[in-house]
Amino acid sequence: MKELQGACIFGQSGGPTSVINASAAGVIQEALKQPGITGVYGAAHGIRGMLEENFYDMSKEDAKELDLLRTTPSSALGSVRYKLAKAEENDKDYKRLLEVFEKYNIRYFFYNGGNDSMDTCNKVSKYMQKAGYECRVMGVPKTIDNDLFGTDHCPGYGSAAKYIATSTMEVYQDARVYDTGMITILEVMGRNAGWLTAASALAAAKGSGPDLIYLPELPFSMEQFLDDVNRVYKQNNKVIVAVSEGAKTAEGKYVAEMGASLAKDSFGHSQLGGTASILANICKEKIANKVRGIEFSLLQRCASHLASKTDVEEAYLAGQMAVRYAVEGKTDYMVAFSRPESGPYQCSITLLALDQVANAEKKVPREWINKEGNFITDDYVRYALPLIQGESCPPMVDGLPRFAQLKKVPAKK
Amino acid sequence: MKELQGACIFGQSGGPTSVINASAAGVIQEALKQPGITGVYGAAHGIRGMLEENFYDMSKEDAKELDLLRTTPSSALGSVRYKLAKAEENDKDYKRLLEVFEKYNIRYFFYNGGNDSMDTCNKVSKYMQKAGYECRVMGVPKTIDNDLFGTDHCPGYGSAAKYIATSTMEVYQDARVYDTGMITILEVMGRNAGWLTAASALAAAKGSGPDLIYLPELPFSMEQFLDDVNRVYKQNNKVIVAVSEGAKTAEGKYVAEMGASLAKDSFGHSQLGGTASILANICKEKIANKVRGIEFSLLQRCASHLASKTDVEEAYLAGQMAVRYAVEGKTDYMVAFSRPESGPYQCSITLLALDQVANAEKKVPREWINKEGNFITDDYVRYALPLIQGESCPPMVDGLPRFAQLKKVPAKK
Repeated sequence: MKELQGACIFGQSGGPTSVINASAAGVIQEALKQPGITGVYGAAHGIRGMLEENFYDMSKEDAKELDLLRTTPSSALGSVRYKLAKAEENDKDYKRLLEVFEKYNIRYFFYNGGNDSMDTCNKVSKYMQKAGYECRVMGVPKTIDNDLFGTDHCPGYGSAAKYIATSTMEVYQDARVYDTGMITILEVMGRNAGWLTAASALAAAKGSGPDLIYLPELPFSMEQFLDDVNRVYKQNNKVIVAVSEGAKTAEGKYVAEMGASLAKDSFGHSQLGGTASILANICKEKIANKVRGIEFSLLQRCASHLASKTDVEEAYLAGQMAVRYAVEGKTDYMVAFSRPESGPYQCSITLLALDQVANAEKKVPREWINKEGNFITDDYVRYALPLIQGESCPPMVDGLPRFAQLKKVPAKK
Repeated sequence: MKELQGACIFGQSGGPTSVINASAAGVIQEALKQPGITGVYGAAHGIRGMLEENFYDMSKEDAKELDLLRTTPSSALGSVRYKLAKAEENDKDYKRLLEVFEKYNIRYFFYNGGNDSMDTCNKVSKYMQKAGYECRVMGVPKTIDNDLFGTDHCPGYGSAAKYIATSTMEVYQDARVYDTGMITILEVMGRNAGWLTAASALAAAKGSGPDLIYLPELPFSMEQFLDDVNRVYKQNNKVIVAVSEGAKTAEGKYVAEMGASLAKDSFGHSQLGGTASILANICKEKIANKVRGIEFSLLQRCASHLASKTDVEEAYLAGQMAVRYAVEGKTDYMVAFSRPESGPYQCSITLLALDQVANAEKKVPREWINKEGNFITDDYVRYALPLIQGESCPPMVDGLPRFAQLKKVPAKK
């Protein structure tokens, strides 16, 4: 182990989740404990805050509030969607970053995010190496989409899956309360990967789930969809469909765009309904009178009141272990999860080279989707069930959640 | 007290809630304990099940499953929207009901629902009196809309309010995570009364709520709305709006219809977006690039995982007390709630004559809406906060809620 004295900086990036702040708590609380780490900075809005020298001194925060980060949804430090240019093409940002790192003696860089953020992480790591500036770079994974390569699953996914499964079970109860026909279309996030939509199968495994599930992994056929819905409707008089927002036809046209283009023609709006509302309207026209489209929308990624305890703990662990590994001398890695191939579920930490994960995308395997392309197999249920175990039960005050309130004291320049 | 031996029948009616089954548990469990009640029937789909002799023998259910009803959302026996004709005009249904009641010696009628259901209750009660058939009739209130006359609040409202406030707080965290501008429009249920939309003010009272709140109690002015949003957007770069699905202009046109009529013109659909998506599109056109409309949809009325403990307990109590009062000889009443005018919150049961409540509607008082008509006062917060206290924490199995599974054994004919 080679000792490296210096400050660390931590940033959050990409779409927030219910547990990204749990990883923040893991990084910050662990870093504050490390004698080798001389300062702990939290960047406002990820890489942008670093470039603009806009970051907070995390040692000034109350320990109790840092603890509350575990159950506070969204990115407490602020997030960003900012893609670094290739250093070979434009090194302005990199030079600036190096300047800032030198000024504050930042020797540890922890970055929490999804695909794009791991790309940022990778680029920063490679540039610093090339520049001969010693800085240990660790990526901490995060995405409700669960689409990061090389890790069994991603922090944030379990909580979103638990929310989707629970809400689907509840809607199931509600949607069959009358003795009249009813079609309900649930729209779930996930532009390219269907992991979140698949989570509705967890509700089905409990007997209160959708009849039909469509992932973006397979081309969406409107004809098959209408056939499927019609068949179930004739059988049961009730249909629940879960569909990914990213459903698109074999020609590459998003279902959501079908409405948008129609809407644009008539009154110039670029977007009226989402996938669920488009499909609900088509079902209403062609199949049944009573149809309802429901979009889980932002709720599925920020509902920390229903977070999975397993997910919260693993998210924390990911942040904590990133710091420990960096202090031990590791760099240029993303913290990843693995589980035993058989036997009871257990989550172990592994390390993945950053250039392996950056920009790679993991989709739901074809064999976990049924032959007809309209449902999910039990293999998925076995995979996902351990990830939603336990309730995180965030502290409530006055009947409402009590979120962390950070002081956000600017770092001394 | 006059003793009356006979069976009781219980029905659920109107839109379900998170706690309507808690009232069912209260009625059924209490009725099963009463020596004077010789049979406990649960009607499938409310009054329709009674007319069709389609009801279940509740004594055949497992005690444990009846207990689970307290935390199972929606109407476990099935609901109905069926308006009885006036008996003077058409007494067919009433005669049939009398026939069924006589056949099973039904002497207690408990009906759980909102405005329309209290009308049913009232009509049945008056008819049975006129027919000289002794039957004690008690209404048990239920509605997330909180718009029943003469009661301080309605079972179902507290849980929906807790869901709306909590989800609003979570969305608030999520919606300000980037350093770019963003407008979020939250659509809340309530066609005529704004109680549910007002619940977003509970989130505002915790510093994580909407900037603007529009109830259906006041006419919706698109001009004022755009002015309001524009002003807040210029100030903060972030705007959160809570709006009732029932928002309508001074001319009586629903905002939701604005889109519907446009959509109808172009491709024949009668409904494309709801209020939120219409307003989001208008904001996108006129104010900001990044706008998101979110509809809480069915989730707000079935999210029993986030039910208010106070609400669950009061809903149970309402059912239980309806039975006790009926056994004591009371009839022709709805069970209602009252609280002391000052001092700490406490919920007492009162009785209201059915013809007083039937079809009457209680709206949010004008003085609880601010002068400008775009926010809610602290008086409302003081009123509503006690109703959302405590978490009902439904039993979870395998990380997901465990709902009641009734056997639904048909009553012996």
